[in-house]
Amino acid sequence: MRIIGIDPGYAIVGYAIIDVEKNKRRLLKYGTIETSSREEFPNRICKIYNEMNDILHNFTPDFASIESLLFQNNQKTAIKVAEARGVIILSLQKFNIKIFEPTPLQVKCSLTGYGKATKQQIILMTKKILNLNEPIKPDDAADACALALSGSIFVNN
Amino acid sequence: MRIIGIDPGYAIVGYAIIDVEKNKRRLLKYGTIETSSREEFPNRICKIYNEMNDILHNFTPDFASIESLLFQNNQKTAIKVAEARGVIILSLQKFNIKIFEPTPLQVKCSLTGYGKATKQQIILMTKKILNLNEPIKPDDAADACALALSGSIFVNN
Repeated sequence: MRIIGIDPGYAIVGYAIIDVEKNKRRLLKYGTIETSSREEFPNRICKIYNEMNDILHNFTPDFASIESLLFQNNQKTAIKVAEARGVIILSLQKFNIKIFEPTPLQVKCSLTGYGKATKQQIILMTKKILNLNEPIKPDDAADACALALSGSIFVNN
Repeated sequence: MRIIGIDPGYAIVGYAIIDVEKNKRRLLKYGTIETSSREEFPNRICKIYNEMNDILHNFTPDFASIESLLFQNNQKTAIKVAEARGVIILSLQKFNIKIFEPTPLQVKCSLTGYGKATKQQIILMTKKILNLNEPIKPDDAADACALALSGSIFVNN
């Protein structure tokens, strides 16, 4: 079973693809889709859509785990992130990929058993589960790894 | 010059297409894209994207005027509307359509010269400018007409 974790955004989208077999989890690929603030917003979400389509076409995941959006103080940013998230969901739907939408709290609980886990604890746990020598960089890709792992726990249960 | 006005949403998207020649504005087509709450959200925004593509393919507008989203009390609804708006913007971008994003205040001012105009005043003004016998129904399509007219004023100036 293959899962893509996605940390949505409009400047940077983090993604990570893991293969799950029984209790083994193997990191296949991770990275970011980045758009420039010099581009018009419609161009930026178009780039995100096209690159997401390419990733899904190349890696054919069975499930996606994309962070659900919660209340944010900066409304303008929240709206733009949601607009970008809309085109990511569209791309997933076009590929018939089942979508999980864990909250940050659910990600923390599923990885560490502790809802108040720090970012550092999540990064360490991700590194341990995936048997990596170095922590994932940048943060957006690391968050996507944690989302993919969290998704794998939802799917297995 | 042809303008499409769009009132974004995920349950109902209102749209209206007007032709503008000098000071004449003619209503060509209006309607709604509707999705059922019985459908999963990814299916709903996929339907919106596909139908918007069909409309843009059939009517080839030069400009789009889509309402900008402002702070809303219901965060969960606001996020879903923004996600749907994202796929509408993607569709417009795929057709290389220039996008205006007036606020509700700008729509009111451009149509009536008065930022505190009521919904009823906007509906009456829309009916008058477009030389219609009856007001547009439903409200989402009427709002889209007002957005298209507002867009036509932005373009002309």
